[in-house]
Amino acid sequence: MFKRLALIGVGLIGSSISHAARRAGLVGEIVGASPTPATRERAEELGLVAKMYADPADAVRGADLVILCSPVGTYEAVAKAIGPHLQQGAIVTDVGSVKCAVVRDVAPHVPEGVHFIAGHPIAGTEQSGPDAGFAELFDGRWCILTPGDAADKDALAKLQEFWRRLGSEVEIMSPEHHDMVLAITSHLPHLIAYNIVNTAAHLERVTDTEVIKFSAGGFRDFTRIAASDPVMWRDVFLNNKDAVLEMLGRFSEDLSSLQRAIRFGDGETLEKLFTEARAIRRGVIHANQDTPQPDFGRRATGDAKVTQR
Amino acid sequence: MFKRLALIGVGLIGSSISHAARRAGLVGEIVGASPTPATRERAEELGLVAKMYADPADAVRGADLVILCSPVGTYEAVAKAIGPHLQQGAIVTDVGSVKCAVVRDVAPHVPEGVHFIAGHPIAGTEQSGPDAGFAELFDGRWCILTPGDAADKDALAKLQEFWRRLGSEVEIMSPEHHDMVLAITSHLPHLIAYNIVNTAAHLERVTDTEVIKFSAGGFRDFTRIAASDPVMWRDVFLNNKDAVLEMLGRFSEDLSSLQRAIRFGDGETLEKLFTEARAIRRGVIHANQDTPQPDFGRRATGDAKVTQR
Repeated sequence: MFKRLALIGVGLIGSSISHAARRAGLVGEIVGASPTPATRERAEELGLVAKMYADPADAVRGADLVILCSPVGTYEAVAKAIGPHLQQGAIVTDVGSVKCAVVRDVAPHVPEGVHFIAGHPIAGTEQSGPDAGFAELFDGRWCILTPGDAADKDALAKLQEFWRRLGSEVEIMSPEHHDMVLAITSHLPHLIAYNIVNTAAHLERVTDTEVIKFSAGGFRDFTRIAASDPVMWRDVFLNNKDAVLEMLGRFSEDLSSLQRAIRFGDGETLEKLFTEARAIRRGVIHANQDTPQPDFGRRATGDAKVTQR
Repeated sequence: MFKRLALIGVGLIGSSISHAARRAGLVGEIVGASPTPATRERAEELGLVAKMYADPADAVRGADLVILCSPVGTYEAVAKAIGPHLQQGAIVTDVGSVKCAVVRDVAPHVPEGVHFIAGHPIAGTEQSGPDAGFAELFDGRWCILTPGDAADKDALAKLQEFWRRLGSEVEIMSPEHHDMVLAITSHLPHLIAYNIVNTAAHLERVTDTEVIKFSAGGFRDFTRIAASDPVMWRDVFLNNKDAVLEMLGRFSEDLSSLQRAIRFGDGETLEKLFTEARAIRRGVIHANQDTPQPDFGRRATGDAKVTQR
């Protein structure tokens, strides 16, 4: 589909795109860029790319597909650097978790004749770096594209097909709506996971050792999400402030109402709310967005003694 | 170890105790009690028990180990009903998620010569009912016992050994400390999971379908916990009010501070907090309380089309 793909950033998402694109035979050559020498070395060692460059401008020369896969806080500088070197007719896209800020930061630097279409694959794990990627990451997940009205129809169709062949379903929406949807399905969940882990770590009456030992009661699930890349997530919150603050306001309001129900021993309200929450879980499983296996199909994680039994 | 084990309640935990006790050959006979005819029938069909009774008083006759495995809101009535029928020298214990309220509700009804030692295995899945149990549930997990100072040493030693042979590690603490520890490692995580699922379900600007479709961004993890048994959890919050409200207060305070950092674009504070949260995840994995595999080792859950590839 493309002769030369340039990945600006080869962390979890960039390296997974490399694996999935090679699995499906979608690209002739893949090159990459990273400011970090160790990352450049590792990406070449792993065979994720034919060549890594320190300067993204070098990576995009001759590329007909350029994908920004670095933290969104870097996009403006990257766009400025690569703008003058983009090939006519090339498609430039990204995988950032916010879209209004990305359109704001990138679009002005993309020259006429180059097609910029912002995107966001809703997929990931808590791991990061070039070793974290795998070809199946996008299978059955959704990729949202936010092309805007002025986007070139052929370029959009081609990018949609690219994501489908990486394993994704594709949905088109406006950057504004994307940022609102993701604020509730991804940004707020990460924020409250980070928050409860920090709350737990700073209690006086419960030690960190106890928090860890007895984490199987539910807390451990939050620690996984809270192990996600800090810089990536810092940039998400700095760049989707309004939608996140709106969702956080709703969350806090609802939490106050639950708090009140607990304080006044209102069992009926608690049971009703808890019962309603089950319907959404059923929807998630029905939509193939999570495994139906209990506990995510997580294996028993007993210590050596138990495992040997 | 015991001649006759009576399980009062055969949901996820009761049925898992049956499986694990039979795996290790710990008991001669297992009987059970449930007020629900369908549960009694199913438990016998599954071979979890030799016989199910409607009245817990019938189940405890001749039992040398009695384990309360019903929602904690039922304990007082159960204790009253079984008290007069408990065998001298028997051990009575439970698996409830709160301990002060359990000691308060159960202890007064346990006759002299019967050993009551409250307990709580920190293990579970989001599933419930007699079909949900499995022998490995307790492997490598912790079981907390809160015997109090007056407990019989031999009975305590025997119960500890029973839990170890079910696969657990055992920790002893006071009911008060248990309730504080679990408020942060289990009760608050469930409360905020229930809360975010309800927040997401009642937005005007994002549809339920969108919440579900794009849930792989983090939200889906919370739906799993929020699929837990509503009655069991209602009873937990009604019976651990003070500790939960204290932890919730801390959580909200910390969340306000994060909210402020987002509002004022304080990236340094965000990155610092997010980085600190990673250390706790490492602790959880090091303590064998979660799998080190990315995404809980969750398999790709693509739709049929993708799976066939």
